[in-house]
Amino acid sequence: MKIGRYLFEEYLDVVKSFHGFAAPGVVIGGIMVDFALEHMPEGVLFNALCETSNCLPDAIQLLTPCTIGNGWLTVNGVGLFALSLYDKSEGRGVRVFLDPKKLELYPEIRNWLFKLKPKSEQNRDLLLEQIQEAGRNICGIQHIRIMPDYLKKHSKGAISTCAKCGEAYPQNNGNLCKNCKGESRYTDNVKISMKDGMDL
Amino acid sequence: MKIGRYLFEEYLDVVKSFHGFAAPGVVIGGIMVDFALEHMPEGVLFNALCETSNCLPDAIQLLTPCTIGNGWLTVNGVGLFALSLYDKSEGRGVRVFLDPKKLELYPEIRNWLFKLKPKSEQNRDLLLEQIQEAGRNICGIQHIRIMPDYLKKHSKGAISTCAKCGEAYPQNNGNLCKNCKGESRYTDNVKISMKDGMDL
Repeated sequence: MKIGRYLFEEYLDVVKSFHGFAAPGVVIGGIMVDFALEHMPEGVLFNALCETSNCLPDAIQLLTPCTIGNGWLTVNGVGLFALSLYDKSEGRGVRVFLDPKKLELYPEIRNWLFKLKPKSEQNRDLLLEQIQEAGRNICGIQHIRIMPDYLKKHSKGAISTCAKCGEAYPQNNGNLCKNCKGESRYTDNVKISMKDGMDL
Repeated sequence: MKIGRYLFEEYLDVVKSFHGFAAPGVVIGGIMVDFALEHMPEGVLFNALCETSNCLPDAIQLLTPCTIGNGWLTVNGVGLFALSLYDKSEGRGVRVFLDPKKLELYPEIRNWLFKLKPKSEQNRDLLLEQIQEAGRNICGIQHIRIMPDYLKKHSKGAISTCAKCGEAYPQNNGNLCKNCKGESRYTDNVKISMKDGMDL
């Protein structure tokens, strides 16, 4: 069994190195990405949509040119274990999903997907064995088309210097950057005191 | 000059391979991540916050254990070219940002950051040269603390099977999955027809 250009065991190592450990979700995700890639016409420039932020985005980033930082991978919050690859320009492509109806023969995968056992009681070796055995048999695949609105590129527009913190920010966010307008995730006291020149 | 464990030229290759090309933002990002890592106490388990979705998240994913799929990297939408690494448990850490005040000697970096020239007119070789020459001199670094609310882990809770599409979804999303409740990014006709059994 191959996942992308990797043998199954090699892929486990690639996942460990990027994701930190051979998470079942990134392993199943690899099988799903591989399945989707095979159904994309050769030479098409494609983007990816990932319907969960758990694990699956890393399989996409490892096996396709699509990453968070290059903008070709979008993660939306619908929370399904599914991904789509689609033509950047007109939105047609395929969606691969994990199909609960196909898990009867793979109880450990079902336990994992539906969180039927606490993590400490899951049998990780058995789970990986069942994933390898199942391969694409637990997946469904569909033709999809992305809504045209989601194909548009959204430019940040002009960049200004924030009058308060002095950093570069998208001008269409208003007269100050979002951090200085109160959207910062930092506790105020620390942020402000450091902005007053207490660089490390 | 080294970026993480890579020589500058090696890092360019790593970026090309993951991000698709040696994007200036991922290269500057690498220098910034490296700077931040050096200020984290040894052995601390840390998360990352990236304040832009452009380029910088890929530098974080390449040089730290934090990825989108393992949940240790969060990208928020404030749109600043800045990142933080912080102790997972109590939120203290460092923030590194690109400081416009320090760009006087590096006009091509300023052109890039403030989009003063269209991409086609930017001199990419000169830009990479200036990035290498500048190194950390164009960055600022601050102590930060993440607000406690953002340190909490949010579990998806129990998983159910959607009564409409049959996929596994977080039960606290309601009686149907978000795709079936109208949050899907797919054009309805295609999605529905495929859901009726027309698998590839």
